[in-house]
Amino acid sequence: MEILGGPLYAVAGAGESHGPAVTTMVMGCPPGIYLRRAAIQNFLDRRRPGGNRHGTPRNEKDKVVLLSGLYQDDHDKLLSGSSLQTTVGADAFQTECFEEGYTTGEPISAIVLSTSKKSGDYTQFAGPTGEVRPGHTDLVKYHKSNGFVDIRGGGRSSYRATISDVIGGSIARIILREMFGTVILTSITQVGTLRASQTLTQHFQDLVTETGNLQIDPKRIESIESQLADAEIQSIDSAFAANAAELIKETRKDGDSLGAAVEVVALNVPPLLGEPLYQSLKLRLMGSLGGLHAVQGCEIGDGFQVVQRRGSENNDPVRSTSYASNHHGGLLGGVTTGMPLVCRVGFKPTSTINQPQQSVRKNLSEIDFRLEKGRHDPCVGVRAGVTLESRVAIELLNAAMMHQSQRLGPDLSKLF
Amino acid sequence: MEILGGPLYAVAGAGESHGPAVTTMVMGCPPGIYLRRAAIQNFLDRRRPGGNRHGTPRNEKDKVVLLSGLYQDDHDKLLSGSSLQTTVGADAFQTECFEEGYTTGEPISAIVLSTSKKSGDYTQFAGPTGEVRPGHTDLVKYHKSNGFVDIRGGGRSSYRATISDVIGGSIARIILREMFGTVILTSITQVGTLRASQTLTQHFQDLVTETGNLQIDPKRIESIESQLADAEIQSIDSAFAANAAELIKETRKDGDSLGAAVEVVALNVPPLLGEPLYQSLKLRLMGSLGGLHAVQGCEIGDGFQVVQRRGSENNDPVRSTSYASNHHGGLLGGVTTGMPLVCRVGFKPTSTINQPQQSVRKNLSEIDFRLEKGRHDPCVGVRAGVTLESRVAIELLNAAMMHQSQRLGPDLSKLF
Amino acid sequence: MEILGGPLYAVAGAGESHGPAVTTMVMGCPPGIYLRRAAIQNFLDRRRPGGNRHGTPRNEKDKVVLLSGLYQDDHDKLLSGSSLQTTVGADAFQTECFEEGYTTGEPISAIVLSTSKKSGDYTQFAGPTGEVRPGHTDLVKYHKSNGFVDIRGGGRSSYRATISDVIGGSIARIILREMFGTVILTSITQVGTLRASQTLTQHFQDLVTETGNLQIDPKRIESIESQLADAEIQSIDSAFAANAAELIKETRKDGDSLGAAVEVVALNVPPLLGEPLYQSLKLRLMGSLGGLHAVQGCEIGDGFQVVQRRGSENNDPVRSTSYASNHHGGLLGGVTTGMPLVCRVGFKPTSTINQPQQSVRKNLSEIDFRLEKGRHDPCVGVRAGVTLESRVAIELLNAAMMHQSQRLGPDLSKLF
Amino acid sequence: MEILGGPLYAVAGAGESHGPAVTTMVMGCPPGIYLRRAAIQNFLDRRRPGGNRHGTPRNEKDKVVLLSGLYQDDHDKLLSGSSLQTTVGADAFQTECFEEGYTTGEPISAIVLSTSKKSGDYTQFAGPTGEVRPGHTDLVKYHKSNGFVDIRGGGRSSYRATISDVIGGSIARIILREMFGTVILTSITQVGTLRASQTLTQHFQDLVTETGNLQIDPKRIESIESQLADAEIQSIDSAFAANAAELIKETRKDGDSLGAAVEVVALNVPPLLGEPLYQSLKLRLMGSLGGLHAVQGCEIGDGFQVVQRRGSENNDPVRSTSYASNHHGGLLGGVTTGMPLVCRVGFKPTSTINQPQQSVRKNLSEIDFRLEKGRHDPCVGVRAGVTLESRVAIELLNAAMMHQSQRLGPDLSKLF
Repeated sequence: MEILGGPLYAVAGAGESHGPAVTTMVMGCPPGIYLRRAAIQNFLDRRRPGGNRHGTPRNEKDKVVLLSGLYQDDHDKLLSGSSLQTTVGADAFQTECFEEGYTTGEPISAIVLSTSKKSGDYTQFAGPTGEVRPGHTDLVKYHKSNGFVDIRGGGRSSYRATISDVIGGSIARIILREMFGTVILTSITQVGTLRASQTLTQHFQDLVTETGNLQIDPKRIESIESQLADAEIQSIDSAFAANAAELIKETRKDGDSLGAAVEVVALNVPPLLGEPLYQSLKLRLMGSLGGLHAVQGCEIGDGFQVVQRRGSENNDPVRSTSYASNHHGGLLGGVTTGMPLVCRVGFKPTSTINQPQQSVRKNLSEIDFRLEKGRHDPCVGVRAGVTLESRVAIELLNAAMMHQSQRLGPDLSKLF
Repeated sequence: MEILGGPLYAVAGAGESHGPAVTTMVMGCPPGIYLRRAAIQNFLDRRRPGGNRHGTPRNEKDKVVLLSGLYQDDHDKLLSGSSLQTTVGADAFQTECFEEGYTTGEPISAIVLSTSKKSGDYTQFAGPTGEVRPGHTDLVKYHKSNGFVDIRGGGRSSYRATISDVIGGSIARIILREMFGTVILTSITQVGTLRASQTLTQHFQDLVTETGNLQIDPKRIESIESQLADAEIQSIDSAFAANAAELIKETRKDGDSLGAAVEVVALNVPPLLGEPLYQSLKLRLMGSLGGLHAVQGCEIGDGFQVVQRRGSENNDPVRSTSYASNHHGGLLGGVTTGMPLVCRVGFKPTSTINQPQQSVRKNLSEIDFRLEKGRHDPCVGVRAGVTLESRVAIELLNAAMMHQSQRLGPDLSKLF
Repeated sequence: MEILGGPLYAVAGAGESHGPAVTTMVMGCPPGIYLRRAAIQNFLDRRRPGGNRHGTPRNEKDKVVLLSGLYQDDHDKLLSGSSLQTTVGADAFQTECFEEGYTTGEPISAIVLSTSKKSGDYTQFAGPTGEVRPGHTDLVKYHKSNGFVDIRGGGRSSYRATISDVIGGSIARIILREMFGTVILTSITQVGTLRASQTLTQHFQDLVTETGNLQIDPKRIESIESQLADAEIQSIDSAFAANAAELIKETRKDGDSLGAAVEVVALNVPPLLGEPLYQSLKLRLMGSLGGLHAVQGCEIGDGFQVVQRRGSENNDPVRSTSYASNHHGGLLGGVTTGMPLVCRVGFKPTSTINQPQQSVRKNLSEIDFRLEKGRHDPCVGVRAGVTLESRVAIELLNAAMMHQSQRLGPDLSKLF
Repeated sequence: MEILGGPLYAVAGAGESHGPAVTTMVMGCPPGIYLRRAAIQNFLDRRRPGGNRHGTPRNEKDKVVLLSGLYQDDHDKLLSGSSLQTTVGADAFQTECFEEGYTTGEPISAIVLSTSKKSGDYTQFAGPTGEVRPGHTDLVKYHKSNGFVDIRGGGRSSYRATISDVIGGSIARIILREMFGTVILTSITQVGTLRASQTLTQHFQDLVTETGNLQIDPKRIESIESQLADAEIQSIDSAFAANAAELIKETRKDGDSLGAAVEVVALNVPPLLGEPLYQSLKLRLMGSLGGLHAVQGCEIGDGFQVVQRRGSENNDPVRSTSYASNHHGGLLGGVTTGMPLVCRVGFKPTSTINQPQQSVRKNLSEIDFRLEKGRHDPCVGVRAGVTLESRVAIELLNAAMMHQSQRLGPDLSKLF
């Protein structure tokens, strides 16, 4: 089942890259949270191609509409702002969508139309003699489905499917920030061979050390958020960002692409969240982040660097107000410690390039392949940040609800 | 999570009775099945109020559009017939929806707009002094959600939510019929104190006995399907149907409502499906049918009648070509035997009535309650048939896929 | 997956009727509950054959040992009382098992050995010419597994598998009773054609009406518990119990068997528990109770009786301190109302009888079947009560934890 | 729920490090597979401390007994070899366990007793003034459970819990090898700062290139298996293995510990397995491997190395008989390509060390901590291989069954 997170807070997604729309269902949201469509849209705007200067030149203008799960007695506020219309044969139907309201605890459904796709010529890819793009899922998905595959793109394997991640993640992070002050940020740390010299991980660790306070001041977080939003590419290291942006531009001209590494840091994370082993938060985060499109590696805390250490160097001393260091990255035994949650993922260079490559047709006859046309992200890492943040938010909110479920007591409920 | 069936074939639903739309995701459909939007619409038409003569006078004209999971290279066939438009502020977007195509194995999403709702006056129900309709979920859902509830209807507890059941069930039954000749029918057997004297259960048991053939001839099934479609209310007993229709009409005039019983029969069911115990097909069907809105009882095979029997009367003798009788109703130990699958459910009379009743406000102060306005089904059983059939189809297809998964062998897959 | 309940409180079971042992895992139990092995054993003792006077003459003396999930610093209390020993070839190992302690939140595992089985002659059932017992799963399970089936009994389809239900249910009911005063009782209401004239449902409804108090006094409950424990068969109607016991005895002599109906009533149930629709508590209970071995029908509240009513008769008036009647059986829209939770199930007569029957061999050649030997319960309903109570407890505790998970707030957790 | 894999092939585990036993349930195994207890024991022997020369000096002699899910008509073969005995108060019970037989499709349960634990003095860790071991879960688990925690070890967070992984993985890999020739191997590639210069990844890639055959000859695999079994520590690079073994020995003397990196390679993997996105095999493997105790990083294929590449370097050319290189590591879009499946994980140095450290009591008062006694693995990576292999096997078998479930067709099942 196409479900992220769960069993308590979960996101289901449907919709392939070139289909009519991406549909999202957000299940398990607690009642009584005030949500605005515009707030979700803000996060989506960070995801879409064209959402920053160095992604793909498409501008899909993905606009989300909300179809269920909200309410408030003021129907003008609830319903003004967006609408949906369907036409079936000669019949046309219209409805107002939810603009803002309180969650009711019932599933929230959302759709984003796919309107920018051109009805172009897909004969290069059609049928058993259709060509296979190296690095893509074309060949395996064609044979997996006995040929019943949408040849116009990667289906659910397309990055477009992550619209659902971001919608579900937006709602989760709004709740986490409101209840716990939890904020999730990403910063690009490497593009090709260029490496950032400043990281969020280090920045906030220094802040904790300096203030002696594990709880990060919201103003300090907002200041970093602004800086990230204004950067040439989303990185806390502005010199690196400028260089990387230039490299991406050059690489696009070459018809080639670049890998990237991104760090994800969650601040003010509630401690004690996470199951012990088979569904531990570490397992869930490694899967959710490491399983994202184009990701080839995932780390928690100091990651592969710990391999070369001794235990005496790597164990984080414990003090009465916090751990004295954070090699563990905010998770011990898969349970949150309250220290910043630190993850890092490595993306492969975008598979779509404008250069000749060796490939096959779907019937496995060999060809010299060249993409006839098409636009692409030369560096998928540039806009992956909001998706990574979303996936962390979904897992954290689910873990928070799992923890809450165990705090069962006699005051559970009252009616009469 | 709002999910029916699964883990292989599953249906997720979102959307309350008075929200913008009902959204459905159908997950796990095998690739390569040819689906037409119109075929799904046909089943939906049987569900909607106004879909027959004795339901509620509303005519919601629920039209489904399909947003993902289909494909064919002929884009004209794939995309002509329905479209979707969203407007967000000043921006408008449009897309063609899927009209017919092959399933790709990826989730199929569908939406049905809710357009007939009047923006009426809901002050009778708003806030802590809002009135509680007896027999409805108003009181419990208000307190369960701390007051954050859509007061305009029952939310997901409204019968409107079963649109998702029918969409998911339609696809399942199309597959089951095409692959195995499996057909699922329902017939109303009781309305208030009126009881039908003919049943599908008996009709098809007689046919098996008469022909000595467990596999029912499709023509014989189609003939019954026509008869059911043409009946005054959906029952194989036309005299009963006429009387019951009259009774419903009279009861509506009285401002009162009626209970009903419905039998569900699946023919040409593949044998050997179902898990042993905790997820047995019997458990799944009892839950899925017995859990439907307004249902208070559910039976498999001869149901509660078996209580008064001796084992020597109740055990079905086994012969070389079939069981000699079908007291077991097509399931032994939760596994299908290939005999007709027979279930029966009892619906309570519709809770909404136009008569004075004792009730409370949501703050529990007592009132004399009278519904100020509103339309209703006097007998919910009249249009429940297609939903029951759908739920059986979802569970059967999931069980078939579970069985198939165990037939693992060396010929599993091939690429190079 | 062989899992009852969940996703929060769940019970997994393994072990067939004639295998070495029944293994149980109880997952999701909140930490800090004090559990005694002996308390679980008490419930198990009610389940086992020979546990009362009218079940099967076997006395399996099923003793449970607990292998994980408990702790207390006093190791003598924790570990004294039971032990486990394994022998593998020449090596023998021994360990003390948990006798009593606090739950840690980690899974609780338990095993019950199957020691009374005789190594007897099973050639009547072996291989493709093995005989099929009518009413049993022999035929379908043989073909479902391509012949790889334990011919010595029904595998997981045997009633012995419900040991896991009872272990998981025991822990759930201990928690429910301690936290909420919730108690779950069963009473046999029908055996063959004999019907009880007193029911728990009526008894406790009268008590609520008489005292005007929805919360039932624990002393009143304990008094009924004693009465049920002392009855000839477990029924609140002692005259009926005596007659039914006599009928069972006579029927056993005839080599025949009897059906039974059992009511299940939960008192002092926390209100507001349950999901809205696809995983509603009504759906879950109908499945869990209706899916039990030999059950052919399941009802909630007034069950099939509501079919013949008008809405004006069936709607339960709401008053400021409770519902004025309980036709709904404690669930509206699948959510608990705080009224007694009332269910009813109908069991078929035990399939195993000592009379000649028509049957087949597993290869479908026809035979005259007669069970060569074996003992049996003439009326499975006589000892099903504790299993039904257990399944209700598992679902109620899971629903309580689901409800608790939604009460997320800023005070979730604290470490430093 | 403590469940690995699923929903089709899944492993549930219970039992903490110092409890009476580790219990395992393997659910979803197809019927008809011949299993021997001794074959599972062989894999377990590789896991246990003392199972090789450089792990912890304990020798737990973990012996598994099988309690359900097997059968064969020859009861001597089925039941000879192992037995189980329980004692409860004055009563003793005994049963023979399953030694070898065919799987029936019902859950397989297994237990391994924990017999080597000393009843020692745990006062250093008991209660609110109990001391916290740096790098361990002591602090978070104590507060997560409100103090109801087994202080004698890490509970389920202890490496001992992976006995269940290995039992479930053993059965999975036996099936995978028999049906598809799939073999899963691990080799240690780094210990502290020492790095291996030979890897399984390179070895088998060279073999594919040399033979032009994607299917690896079983003899070539067996030869590597022998080499790995005989190595000083489990690595294909024997010079490295010798040096690393020496380093481990020295580090143990220092009372310190070492990190390690391990590669996991699956050969002859069926192609086309895996879901598209939210439950993709990449996501599942990243989670399952990356979520294991002490793991801080996980990679698929070339992992973080791809970050610095261009697309033109990283895309694997496709040829008619295989991919020409394997930077993708056998998974594209989360679907298997049939190329060797290549993963890599990084383990932190064992947290338990014999050196003074800064820590706290559970009540957060600061202390100078020194472990009073205890034995430990100085390098947990040395014996993690079999667990990693097991987790891959569980996910692969589940994915194979998921793929098989989609191949539904008219020949599904037959009874009469």
